[in-house]
Parts: sequence; C-alpha cells; structure tokens
Amino acid sequence: MTTTPTTSTGGSASASAHALYGPVAADLPRVSEALGSIATNVEFAFLQKMLENALAGTGKMMRPAIALLGGRLGTYDLDRLVPLAASVELLHTATLVHDDVIDEAQARRGEPTPNALFGNAASVMLGDYMFAHAADFIAQTDNTRVVRTFARTLMMMANGELKQDMTVFEYSEDVQRYLDRITGKTASLFGTAAEGGAMVAGAPAEQVEAMRVYGLHLGIAFQIVDDILDFTGDPAVMGKPVGSDLAGGTLTLPTILYMQRKPDDNPVKRAFEGVRRKANIDRAIREIVESDLLEESMHTALRYGEEARNALQVLPAGEVRDTLSNILDYVFARKS
Amino acid sequence: MTTTPTTSTGGSASASAHALYGPVAADLPRVSEALGSIATNVEFAFLQKMLENALAGTGKMMRPAIALLGGRLGTYDLDRLVPLAASVELLHTATLVHDDVIDEAQARRGEPTPNALFGNAASVMLGDYMFAHAADFIAQTDNTRVVRTFARTLMMMANGELKQDMTVFEYSEDVQRYLDRITGKTASLFGTAAEGGAMVAGAPAEQVEAMRVYGLHLGIAFQIVDDILDFTGDPAVMGKPVGSDLAGGTLTLPTILYMQRKPDDNPVKRAFEGVRRKANIDRAIREIVESDLLEESMHTALRYGEEARNALQVLPAGEVRDTLSNILDYVFARKS
Repeated sequence: MTTTPTTSTGGSASASAHALYGPVAADLPRVSEALGSIATNVEFAFLQKMLENALAGTGKMMRPAIALLGGRLGTYDLDRLVPLAASVELLHTATLVHDDVIDEAQARRGEPTPNALFGNAASVMLGDYMFAHAADFIAQTDNTRVVRTFARTLMMMANGELKQDMTVFEYSEDVQRYLDRITGKTASLFGTAAEGGAMVAGAPAEQVEAMRVYGLHLGIAFQIVDDILDFTGDPAVMGKPVGSDLAGGTLTLPTILYMQRKPDDNPVKRAFEGVRRKANIDRAIREIVESDLLEESMHTALRYGEEARNALQVLPAGEVRDTLSNILDYVFARKS
Repeated sequence: MTTTPTTSTGGSASASAHALYGPVAADLPRVSEALGSIATNVEFAFLQKMLENALAGTGKMMRPAIALLGGRLGTYDLDRLVPLAASVELLHTATLVHDDVIDEAQARRGEPTPNALFGNAASVMLGDYMFAHAADFIAQTDNTRVVRTFARTLMMMANGELKQDMTVFEYSEDVQRYLDRITGKTASLFGTAAEGGAMVAGAPAEQVEAMRVYGLHLGIAFQIVDDILDFTGDPAVMGKPVGSDLAGGTLTLPTILYMQRKPDDNPVKRAFEGVRRKANIDRAIREIVESDLLEESMHTALRYGEEARNALQVLPAGEVRDTLSNILDYVFARKS
C-alpha cells in the first residue's frame, strides 16, 4: 500500500480514495457535499469563512469511508448512511477545533488553526455550531440506537480530551492510562463510525459487534502510529517540529516506554519538574529517535492492528472485508 | 404571583417550586438527581468540582418544569421525561459555560463564572462534557422526533449566540434582528422543552404544537424581561451593574427603542464609534432608565406573553394549563 490521499478534495484525492475505499469511494463526494452544505445559507460571511476553513481539513475521509463500508453489510441506504458519515467527520472536526483552542495550538498540519486565524471566542462558537450540526446529521439516521451510541462516544471523547489535558506535564509511566486516553480521544469515534454504519444498515448483530471491535482497535493503532510519526515524520509534511507532543507536555507511548527504561537518569522527569526544560526535552527526543523504542511502539500498534484484522473474520469474504483490511494496511503505511 | 424560587436546591426552593410548578413540583428532585449524577463517578476531582459548580446555578428549574408539564398532557412516563428535562437544563447550562468563555464574563448572578475560576481551556472542555451528557440524556427518550427537535434547537441556539457575538458593538436599530436573535438564543430551548415533553408523552398533535407556541413566546417574553431587568434590577441581586449589556456592547430592546427615538443625538452610536465611550454609555443608561422605554419594552414582552397564553387555550382546562399560565405570570413578576 503506497496510496496517499491528499488533503485536497480535488481529482487526485478522488482517484486515491477510489483505490483505498473501493466499493464506497464513489459515494464519499455525497458526504463532502453534506458537510459543505452546513457552510452554505449561513447568515454571516465570517462564520461561512470559518466553516469552510475548518472543513478544508477533511481530506482523507477515513472515518466516513469506514461508516459507509459498515453500511455495505446490510441495506445500503445512502439517505441514512450519508448523514451518519457526515456526522462522524463533523464530530471529529469540531473536536479538533476545540482541542486547538484548549491547547492554544497555532498550526495543524502546517495550516493555521481556527483560533490562530479567528481567535478563541469565535472558535469556541464555531465548534459548538459544528457539534449542533453533527447532532442534526445523526438525528437524520432516524435510529435511536445509533443516536445513543453517538452520545456515548461524545462522552468518551470529552473524557479522553480531559484526561489528556489534565495530565499535561504530569509525570507518568503508565501505558494503560495512555491506552485508555487514546481509546476515548480517538478510537471510540472510529469504533462508532464502523459500528454505526452496520447498525443503520441493519446488519446482523455479530457483524455490528465485529465492526465495533475492528474500528476501536484500528483507532488505537491509528493513534499510536500518529504518536510515532510525531517523532519520525517529516516536519515539513507534518507541519510541526519533531517531538512536539513531548515538548507540549503530552506523554505518548514512545516517551512512556523511554521513561520506563530510564527510571533513574530521566530527562523527561527533570524537564517536567522545570529543570533545564528545553535541553532535557531535546535530549529525550534525540534519544527516543535514536533508540528502538519507536519500533517497539510500532509493534504495539501492530498488535492492535491484528486484533482489528481478526475481528474482520466474522464478516463475509468479499470486497467490503478486503477494503477494511486495506484501510488497516494504510494506517501503518502512512507517512503523515 | 410573588413566588420567588431561590437558587439553592434546599427545602425552601422545593416549597416555592411546589407553589409555582404544581403537579410536577414533586418530580423535579428526580431531574436534579439526574443532573447531579453526571458529577459522580467522575475520574478527576477537578472535573467533579467544575461540574458541581456549574450545576449549582440550576436553581429555578423552569425549563425542566415546563418539559414535565408537557409530559402531563399524555403518558407521564418519568423514565423518559426526566432525561428529557435534564437534557434541557444541561444544554442551557452548557451554553452558559461557553457563553461566559466567549464573552470573557467574570461573574454571573454574583458568582464567579467557570472561566473565572478554572480558566478558559478547562471551561471549553467542561461545556463539551456537559453537551455530551445532554446528548446522552436526550437519546434516553428513545424518540427520534425529539432528538431531531433538539438537534435543531441546538443549531438555533448556536446561531443566536453567534448573532449576538458577531454584532457586539455594532450599531443597529433593528428590533426584528433583536427578536430573531433572542428567539434562537433563548426562546427556542423553551419551545423545545415544552414541545418535547408533550411529544415524549404522545400528546395529540395540536397540543404538541400549542406547547411549542407557548414555550417559544414565553421564552421571548422571558428574555425581554431579562433585558429590562438589566436596567431595573438591583445590582446586588443581579450580581452585575445596571446597564451591563449595553456597556458590553450588546443592544437589547430598550436600547434599540432609545436609538430609534434619538436618531440624531445618540450617545450609543458615539460610544460604539469609540467617542468618550464610558461617558456616552453612562448617559444612555441614565436616559433609558428615566424614560418610558422600559415600560414600552415591557408592553412588547406582555404581547408575547399573551400569545403564549392564547396558545394554552388548546389544552384541556385543569391544573396543567393553570400551572403553565402561572409560570407566565411569574416571568413578568420576577425581580431577578
């Protein structure tokens, strides 16, 4: 797998999306259209500009694609599946908008954040406006089970974000806490996208459950890879310096493993205690990058990937299952 | 009507709630309990403290009471009506939390705001966490029509708040724009509380519609009275100085009428243009308070109140209708 969807919504993205998302690729433009619709008929030019800006980042559409693939397991009714897929992507994007306010982030993937462009107050409102539309989309599925699943996911995401922010610059070597946190923050929405699509389509219960397990484990793997890329990615492509999570006080898997390995001589601990912060952080980043800890982290990600792949065995053999498997490959192959 | 529910949830509040909310007063503690439940089993002591603080302001419980009264028009199933009522109150409270971040408000009703106590970042998260729980509560009604109505309301509220904040320090004499704004910001949730209760209870369609009209018009009246109280209320009770809306750049009905009456010699216009801001604002506040404009504004509020009362004629005569009418009286009698 070397397919690399671009962040643009133009022709090349469609072509690569087609290669990656197979039987649902042709329907993703309808999801983009639904997302775009919330920026039209907006009374304020300023709000429209903010919305277009926030939605411009919805390039890969991995979550919507997984939701639609779940829909392929039963009655593939796009009138319900497109709102579901749009809701998933909008929830994800709204969360990013608020996260950037909370973290005072100035750039994401090399682009200025909404708070950098429009200020904090406007960005809080922008996120709320997007949450409201996400709620409206999910209500359009006309399925209370899906609505409840989404509400629970929103709670898990809020919890995960809280856990991350309340433990910033807190010294902890606990891998389990890290996994709990990324399960809430990232994986729960992947799980709900996958499960929700199957639910809306009325797929058999064991397939709905298989999709949930697939999505959840894929999401954990996705986030671990993300956290590895924070150390290994090209800063020009990532739009942020190497080791920016650690520099910002967030401990991810590679750093937690590093701390476990160096209980006595630990620059992260000293930096978090305020001792020569920059020098100690720089040393930790360098030692992590030069160690085998990123490979070890990747092994953990791969274990979750295998759990996701095992879950797919419950699904009937065919294009849908193969595509879900390809998405898993892509998660590990991506470079940004 | 001289009933004045206190903001405490203790005995005296229950007593006055009983006088005002009649046939549903005894069930409001279940709503408070549901609201309180989101602050228990919270992993972080800090989050728990923030939640308890934010929920301490839910004293009058007017919106939940109206929702339960709507429920009295059909099958009064508290297992669905309590989550509905809790969702309404939580949405309202979450909105206040984000509004205070957006407006950089330091106090509300004399108490420090969450952002004053805990900072902006934590308050954005707190609001999101409450929105997530509100979504979970509404999903518990197991009624997709109610869920869709709520999603639409959330959109209207986000829109109303945006309208307010994007027009701060913008000079406009337009009463209709003001009414649109408060319909979104305040009245839509009252309408949905009233309508939602009747919907969940399976009330006849014309009663559901009557409740919607009642709630919406009551909500508009409520906000106009609120905006009058900003000029006439006791600063010690209100917890803010007289004319604080105008001082903060928000034009409400009394000020818009004032500007219409003084098209040439207008201190508000000059203040908003940056000319001797404080002196001009102070003069405008004094002239508004001394004029008959607050009475004229109250007449407008009363007209909406009468629309609300007319809508009640569709409901069967009895305790529920009488209580809804009493709540309307209370909206006009309140002093804070």
